[in-house]
Amino acid sequence: MIQDPFKPAKRVAGQRQDVWSIVNEAAAAYNQEHGAGSVVNMGQGFFGYNPPEFVLDAARDALGKVDCNQYSPTKGRPRLKQAIADAYSPFFGKKIDPEKEVTITTGANEGMLSAFMGFLEPGDEVIVFEPFFDQYISNIEMPGGKVVYVPLQPPKDGATKTTSAGEWTLDMKELESKITDRTRMIVINTPHNPVGKVFSRDELQAIGDLCVKHNIIILSDEVYDRLYYVPFTRAATLSPEVANLTLTVGSGGKCFYCTGWRVGYLIGPEHLIKYVSAAHTRICYSSVSPLQEATAVAFEQADKHNFWEESKTEMKGKMDRFNEIWKELGLPYSDPEGGYFVLVNLAKVKLPEDYDFPPHVASRPRDFKLSWFFIKELGIAAIPPTEFFTDANAHIVEDWLRFAVCKDDEVLEKAKERLRGLKKYIQ
Amino acid sequence: MIQDPFKPAKRVAGQRQDVWSIVNEAAAAYNQEHGAGSVVNMGQGFFGYNPPEFVLDAARDALGKVDCNQYSPTKGRPRLKQAIADAYSPFFGKKIDPEKEVTITTGANEGMLSAFMGFLEPGDEVIVFEPFFDQYISNIEMPGGKVVYVPLQPPKDGATKTTSAGEWTLDMKELESKITDRTRMIVINTPHNPVGKVFSRDELQAIGDLCVKHNIIILSDEVYDRLYYVPFTRAATLSPEVANLTLTVGSGGKCFYCTGWRVGYLIGPEHLIKYVSAAHTRICYSSVSPLQEATAVAFEQADKHNFWEESKTEMKGKMDRFNEIWKELGLPYSDPEGGYFVLVNLAKVKLPEDYDFPPHVASRPRDFKLSWFFIKELGIAAIPPTEFFTDANAHIVEDWLRFAVCKDDEVLEKAKERLRGLKKYIQ
Repeated sequence: MIQDPFKPAKRVAGQRQDVWSIVNEAAAAYNQEHGAGSVVNMGQGFFGYNPPEFVLDAARDALGKVDCNQYSPTKGRPRLKQAIADAYSPFFGKKIDPEKEVTITTGANEGMLSAFMGFLEPGDEVIVFEPFFDQYISNIEMPGGKVVYVPLQPPKDGATKTTSAGEWTLDMKELESKITDRTRMIVINTPHNPVGKVFSRDELQAIGDLCVKHNIIILSDEVYDRLYYVPFTRAATLSPEVANLTLTVGSGGKCFYCTGWRVGYLIGPEHLIKYVSAAHTRICYSSVSPLQEATAVAFEQADKHNFWEESKTEMKGKMDRFNEIWKELGLPYSDPEGGYFVLVNLAKVKLPEDYDFPPHVASRPRDFKLSWFFIKELGIAAIPPTEFFTDANAHIVEDWLRFAVCKDDEVLEKAKERLRGLKKYIQ
Repeated sequence: MIQDPFKPAKRVAGQRQDVWSIVNEAAAAYNQEHGAGSVVNMGQGFFGYNPPEFVLDAARDALGKVDCNQYSPTKGRPRLKQAIADAYSPFFGKKIDPEKEVTITTGANEGMLSAFMGFLEPGDEVIVFEPFFDQYISNIEMPGGKVVYVPLQPPKDGATKTTSAGEWTLDMKELESKITDRTRMIVINTPHNPVGKVFSRDELQAIGDLCVKHNIIILSDEVYDRLYYVPFTRAATLSPEVANLTLTVGSGGKCFYCTGWRVGYLIGPEHLIKYVSAAHTRICYSSVSPLQEATAVAFEQADKHNFWEESKTEMKGKMDRFNEIWKELGLPYSDPEGGYFVLVNLAKVKLPEDYDFPPHVASRPRDFKLSWFFIKELGIAAIPPTEFFTDANAHIVEDWLRFAVCKDDEVLEKAKERLRGLKKYIQ
C-alpha cells in the first residue's frame, strides 16, 4: 500500500517559489495598496495592447465556422501549416513542405517540450546556455533529460557603461568541453531572452559545426524572429548539414501580440518533425482550433498590411524610448539587438541597508531584492535574471534587472517618470 | 557520440498506425472519390454544429480585451475558476474554493496528463478499465507509469438483442486482485466512452471503498457529465473519504460543443490540485486565454439559457433518432445511459469473403474490417473499438462499431439512409 497517496512526483515537488509568482504577488500587493492596475508591470513578456484588427477579425470569423470550433488535426490545421510554410520558405531558401516539415503546437513552450519528449531518453544530455528561459529546464527534465549548462558572459565593462547585447559572449572551447557521449540536443535562443543578443552568423556556424561533428540536434528557439535590429541569421539556414539536424521553434503569440492564444509551431526536416508531432499528440492531442485558423490568416495577410516592418519599427521605437531613462539616470544597460527585453545594470543603486525584505526574497541574490524594492518603492515590476542561471553562475547577473518594453507608450512614459525616483539611491 | 541523432525516444517510436489516422485516411479517400464532404463522419466525437450563440458572443467579446489575449495565469483565469466553482458546488454539496480546488488545463486530455505527471513515479501502476480512451495509455506511460487493465464485460446476450449500456459490468473481485503495492491511481470514466455506461452509485461506492482502503487516487474522467439519461453519480460525492482522494476531470469543449477550444478543468482537494497545476505549468505553461474567458461566460449564463436541459434533451433525441435504424435492420446495440456514442453489434453482418482489405486493416481484428467496409461501401465512418482494448481482450468487441451521434439531424438521417444498404449483408 502507498503510505502517502498525496505525495507528488519528484518532477513537481518541493521547488522553491518561482520568479513569476514572487513578482506577481508583490505587484498584486502594490495594487491592493495603491489601487487596481497602479503597478507598472514590465515583468512578464506579455503585450500591453491587442493584436492588430486584421488578426482579431480573422479570429472572430473563425468562431463562426463549425470545423474551426472542433478538433484540429493533431499536427495542426492545414491552412496554418500552409501559411507558415509559405511565410518561412523565402527565409529558409527552400520550399518547405507544409505536411511533413511543419507541425503546430500549443504555444512554443509545449512545442519545445514535444521536441524533448520526442528524442530524449532518461539520462540523455541537453546543452543550454545561461541565462535560459526557465521552462526549458523542467521541459528537459520531464522526459528524464539532464541539463548541461554553458554560461554566456556579459561584457567586462557592462557595469560601468552601456554596451551592446551582442557583446555577451559564448566560450566555444567551454561549449565543446561539455559535449559527451550522451549529448543529444542543444538549445539555441536567438534573438535571446533575456539578453537581447542576436547570435551572429559566425557564432551560429561554430555551434552548428560542433553539432554536425557530434550528431547533436539543434532546437533553435526563434520566437522573437520578427524583432531584430541587426542582421539576423536562422540556425537552419547555415548549411544543408546543419538544417538536417535543426528544429526551428516559432510563436504566433509573439508574432501577433497574443501570448494567450497558445499557437506555436516547429519547422524542420521530416525525420525530426514527425516525432515532435507524435509527442505533441500524446501531450495535448491537438491545439486550439479557431485561433490556429486566425493565425493562418494573420500570416497570409501580414505582408499586405506591412505588419512585419511596422511591428519591428514600433518595437525598436519603444525600446529606444524607454532606454532614454537609463541615460538620464547614468545607469548602464545592455542595448538589445532583438526582442523586447532590456537588461539594466543596477550596481550603482544602493538599497537602504535596513530595508525589510521578506525571507523568500532576502534569501535570494541581490537582483531579487532590487526587483522587490522596485515594486514596493517605485511601483514598477521587473524580473530578476538570476532566476535564469544556475546558483553557481547567478553572480554573473545579480546586479541586473530585466524590463519588458512591449507596452503602450504611455505606460513606458509612466515607468520612466517613476524611475526618476531612483535618483536618490544612485551612488 | 550518438550514432543516430534522429532516433526517436521509445515513448513516441514504432507504434502501429492509430485508429484515428486509419479511419480519417479512409474517409478522405472516400471523399476524394465521391466529392468533398460526401462521407458521413460518425467516427471522432466532434460536434457537427457550432456552440450556442451566447457562447460564441462571449468568445468574440473576449477577443476585444487586451488581457484576454495575453497569458492566462498558469492555473487559469480567475473568472473561469470562479464560474466552475459556482457551477459545480451544488453538485458536490459543498462550496468549492476556486483558487485552491479548481485548475484549468489545455483540454481534459492535457489535464489528465498533468494529473499523471503530478503523481506518478516510474514503475507506479494505474488501473484502467477496458475499453479505455486511447490517450490514457500514452499519458500514463509518459511519466513512466505502468497501465494495469481490467476489462468491462459486455452483456452476455449483447450479440443477439439490444441491451442497456448499464449491463456492461466490472468484476470487482478481478479489480481488487489487480491492486498491488505500486497502485497509485485508478481511472474512472462516467458517462463512459465508448460504452455509454453511467456507473451506478453502488458500483462507484465499491470502487471508492477499495481506493480508500488501499490509498489510491481516483481520476474520474467526467467530461460527458451533462449528458446522462439515467441517474448520474459523481465519484467525488460518494463520501468525504472518497472526495479526499478524487480528482474530477471536466471539459468545456464537451459541455459547449467546441472540442477545438482546448479548455479543460480539474476539481479536487487542494492537496491534489496543487500538483496537477504544477505539472500543467511545466507542460503548457498556461492555457488558451480568450476561450477560457468565453467558457467562463458560458458557465455563468448556461442556466439562464436553459442550456443544460436543452442540451441533454437534444442529444438524447439524436441518440434515439439514429438508433431507429438498428431496430429497422434487426441489429442489436448497447443503448447508452449517457454521452453521445453508441456501440452496435454487427455479428450478423457478413463481409464478402473475397473483399480486398489493405494490409494495415487485414492484420487487425474484425471490427477494423467492418469499419473499413462501412467507409468504402456505405460512406459512413465509425470507430472500431478493439483499439480501446489490449490485444488479449480485443476479442470482446471485435463485432462492434462505435458511432458518434453529435451531428446535425439531417446528417443522422443521411447515415440511416446509407445504412439501409447494409441489408443485403445481414444474415
